[in-house]
Amino acid sequence: MNKNIINKRYKLGILGGMGPLATAKLYERIVNLTDAKNDQDHIEMCILNNCTIPDRTKAIFENGESPVEKLQEGVNQLIEIGCENFIVPCNTAHYFKDKYIQNDKINFIDMIEETIKYIKENFYGLKVCVLATIGTVMSNIYGKDKEVNINYPCEFTQKEVMEIIYQTKAGFDMFDKLQTIVSSEKYDVYLLACTELSIYKDRLEGNVIDAMDVLAIKAIEKCGKRVKKID
Amino acid sequence: MNKNIINKRYKLGILGGMGPLATAKLYERIVNLTDAKNDQDHIEMCILNNCTIPDRTKAIFENGESPVEKLQEGVNQLIEIGCENFIVPCNTAHYFKDKYIQNDKINFIDMIEETIKYIKENFYGLKVCVLATIGTVMSNIYGKDKEVNINYPCEFTQKEVMEIIYQTKAGFDMFDKLQTIVSSEKYDVYLLACTELSIYKDRLEGNVIDAMDVLAIKAIEKCGKRVKKID
Repeated sequence: MNKNIINKRYKLGILGGMGPLATAKLYERIVNLTDAKNDQDHIEMCILNNCTIPDRTKAIFENGESPVEKLQEGVNQLIEIGCENFIVPCNTAHYFKDKYIQNDKINFIDMIEETIKYIKENFYGLKVCVLATIGTVMSNIYGKDKEVNINYPCEFTQKEVMEIIYQTKAGFDMFDKLQTIVSSEKYDVYLLACTELSIYKDRLEGNVIDAMDVLAIKAIEKCGKRVKKID
Repeated sequence: MNKNIINKRYKLGILGGMGPLATAKLYERIVNLTDAKNDQDHIEMCILNNCTIPDRTKAIFENGESPVEKLQEGVNQLIEIGCENFIVPCNTAHYFKDKYIQNDKINFIDMIEETIKYIKENFYGLKVCVLATIGTVMSNIYGKDKEVNINYPCEFTQKEVMEIIYQTKAGFDMFDKLQTIVSSEKYDVYLLACTELSIYKDRLEGNVIDAMDVLAIKAIEKCGKRVKKID
């Protein structure tokens, strides 16, 4: 580890707000999965609810305003406040990562890379269907590793996934629609690759991998804490 | 409002981590209660999970390490990162407030004062039983306003409340024990005046006021957003 990032005030920074509910759920998941006996055993964190970062999918495919400047600003704030590591609980935002992680003052824990590694170790050879924004799907950020069998839903289902994501951001409960897609069992396993979909993970039945869960566990480990055993 | 605190980057700072799960729940509650149609409608926030702040009750009554320095440090960080308002989701920490809110660079939204106001407006004349840490109880921070009929549990029940709080911080589900206390109906209404108890609010049956809920609603209003109507 670079000497610049030793002895920082906060072990973990979360560049969040994309969307806010997903970031709140991730924060809660990290707390619940940390093996701790009291407040002081937990991870010191700084969480930014930077919810005005422009829409990532619209920036990629509809010529919308770029989120890069605000993402860079967020990373700089996490560095200034003294974070050692940081995570971005938005899959689509990882499309822009080369533009906001290019410095050695903070360590980036990459949700996409960690999830791909997790799939290779635990679901090798299975047909994985990525449920994500059209931004994540079209840019194929999950499909770069040829050892993982990555697939995408048909056009009709993809439209439904987008509706679930935006309606969730608007505060609606879209669980039933997501459960129907997962229950179709057209693929061996479904990857929740949008943090708005990760919100439903605990209620979903079926073969599901949650990228946000992988990220929570990796963040705890990289911050030097133990992951709690869940019965 | 002081001109120093206009045009800050973040509308709201949360000096949290006391404990971490309570802060995560508060963050989620603010998000769920904000009337928003997309990410960008939400409140820009910075949340500090400052979980190594020394135990507040032990500092008040057992000559434990003072939390004041770390509380001050947290407030200064929220000012530096550009927060306009801040809240502290720990009732007991309000005992020390005169030592960490003495500056005009950030506006403090006081959970205790807002809750007392709320009780006067909505539960006037009723016998209120404060469920809180021994630090909050013995320092009587909820009892300064003589227009509110504040009461405390007997010594035996108070010990049980403390056990619920510390076991919750250790990751155990103490709902049944808290429900038993509320169900005894010895008082007109029970005030959840420790954020660890607020975690159980949605599951509790009986006449309950939740200080953290009052804080969430006041924070949304003071940040210029509308509170969502819940059916």
